[in-house]
Amino acid sequence: MTAGIPTTFIDIFGMMRWVQAAGVEPTLVGMAREIERDYLRWQRFDKVPRVATHSELGVIELMPTSDGEEYAFKYVNGHPLNPQHGFQTVAAFGVLADVDNGYPTFFAEMTLLTALRTAAISGLVASYLARPDSRVMGMIGTGAQSEFQALAMRSMLGINDLKLFDVDSEATAKARENLENAGFEVQTCDSPSEAARGTDIITTCTADKRLARVLHDVDVAPGMHINAVGGDCPGKTELDKQILYRGPVFVELEEQTRIEGEIQQVPADFPVIELWELFSDSTRGRTSPEQVTIFDSVGFAISDFSALRYVRDAVRGSEFEKDINFIANPHDPKDLYSLVSKRKPASVPAS
Amino acid sequence: MTAGIPTTFIDIFGMMRWVQAAGVEPTLVGMAREIERDYLRWQRFDKVPRVATHSELGVIELMPTSDGEEYAFKYVNGHPLNPQHGFQTVAAFGVLADVDNGYPTFFAEMTLLTALRTAAISGLVASYLARPDSRVMGMIGTGAQSEFQALAMRSMLGINDLKLFDVDSEATAKARENLENAGFEVQTCDSPSEAARGTDIITTCTADKRLARVLHDVDVAPGMHINAVGGDCPGKTELDKQILYRGPVFVELEEQTRIEGEIQQVPADFPVIELWELFSDSTRGRTSPEQVTIFDSVGFAISDFSALRYVRDAVRGSEFEKDINFIANPHDPKDLYSLVSKRKPASVPAS
Repeated sequence: MTAGIPTTFIDIFGMMRWVQAAGVEPTLVGMAREIERDYLRWQRFDKVPRVATHSELGVIELMPTSDGEEYAFKYVNGHPLNPQHGFQTVAAFGVLADVDNGYPTFFAEMTLLTALRTAAISGLVASYLARPDSRVMGMIGTGAQSEFQALAMRSMLGINDLKLFDVDSEATAKARENLENAGFEVQTCDSPSEAARGTDIITTCTADKRLARVLHDVDVAPGMHINAVGGDCPGKTELDKQILYRGPVFVELEEQTRIEGEIQQVPADFPVIELWELFSDSTRGRTSPEQVTIFDSVGFAISDFSALRYVRDAVRGSEFEKDINFIANPHDPKDLYSLVSKRKPASVPAS
Repeated sequence: MTAGIPTTFIDIFGMMRWVQAAGVEPTLVGMAREIERDYLRWQRFDKVPRVATHSELGVIELMPTSDGEEYAFKYVNGHPLNPQHGFQTVAAFGVLADVDNGYPTFFAEMTLLTALRTAAISGLVASYLARPDSRVMGMIGTGAQSEFQALAMRSMLGINDLKLFDVDSEATAKARENLENAGFEVQTCDSPSEAARGTDIITTCTADKRLARVLHDVDVAPGMHINAVGGDCPGKTELDKQILYRGPVFVELEEQTRIEGEIQQVPADFPVIELWELFSDSTRGRTSPEQVTIFDSVGFAISDFSALRYVRDAVRGSEFEKDINFIANPHDPKDLYSLVSKRKPASVPAS
């Protein structure tokens, strides 16, 4: 008899050491396969837009989903000014639970995991949509997500040449150093236009919380794939809206992306294709080498579900996981009071 | 420099030992005051109905709220058949966060805490609505919540005489033993009618997930206060709907209670009074000794916000709290990649 049921937990140190041991690129590829498998069983999932609590400085969101057997949710914030105060723009943690009894089964840090799953789905979608001969990626925004995006594109598409731009030149220098150390050919640029020129894929990943145009229509050439990651909140977009009319737009969950994505700039009947449709039928993707394709990425709960399950399975029984005592477990489930009654010391074990 | 920011955490063992040390009744009274203070600043809060994921066997809910400075949410399940398998009907945990940077600041087990805050608000509301000369409480349902309800009514109203009924006679024997040990005069009853007869307050707190009538209109006498705790899900009610027409009905958040409470049985324009109105103006409460008053309790996020802050403040710096490393903290907030790059071992501390 014990008063608590230990739940498995991976903290930030465990997550770091697991990713270091497994390698970032193999982890991204494995996670992308898990995400693809889950989107292919789209109809099985309970899908609701995330619940957002907005404040002047940012947003805190809860992102739940379930496949009927397992439940997952993520807590995640988005605070663009955080780095000025030494904090990260995005921090997150998440939980898996058993649908049949409602008990949590796995807790995880998800700041790193969110960066990994966001890059994994970008790489996965680009592997469907970018031209097969893609070689060069332009990156507008070189913050915390940028290295993961580059590694995803290399591991899944063989992209090795990068052109970087950020309004923060220190962030660009940081990304350049990290990416050169990782073996990329890197060119830094003085403008978004320069970073876009001559590329096959453009990734926009900035943190500005406003209707920005970090990429202009004139900078988009035929045949490009646009991987728009940073526009993910009401009032926060990155693309010149003319770009959205250049080619098919792909989204995670239409209902959520209409509120949060680049397509908040266009009418509600603007046509989009959900990723599960693309993964189920690749003829829904690129139809010619000249076509422009656009992934309006905002981040969806099923990707977190996939990422949490991928990590949980990968670290099971390893040194990277630990126990946490979140859940009360009285001897008699109807006798919760025994846990606090001084008259029943027998049911109160040492911590 | 460290790769993680420790967050304060109180696990089930810490919570048990803190409540034992502080005493259940003083804790209930203190928490009730905190809840009352927060409902009195009702307009400051972000209020949304909880996000529920229903399955055949139960429900998993996320309950967020914020006062603009602090954010709180609770994860809680409700699975009526769980006790048959040795699990509790309700298990929960919760988090406080800083609205300005979105970082979690406090994690807590909330299975015990939910039992405490549910009882605290029942006692608080009864202290406004029950007749001042109330002496006897009938309790229909003697599960995990029952002892906490009794202690709340004693600490806030002086109730010392209890009449108990449950369809599970073992649960009644368990409650009787606990409550007699705690100094109550206890009578066990063979029917809900018998448990209601001659009482001043009736608490219904059962777990059946259906439209039940555990209390019939004929058993409600003039002057009673009805504390209806167990009807808290779509399709899960406890009161004969005629009872709702006997006197004013008080609710936490009207919008949520219309979906989940006893008032799901009556038309959408059925009048209710929100608790913040009662606490702000006690003339909204009982107007005569003969009146029947009804609290249609379903549980609302602000009560959890209050409970989490009360515990956080009470355990600060004590042996009951510990550290948990949920949050990544790279040296440069835009260099999350440094936490997983093998080329930067200097930024990877030991766990």
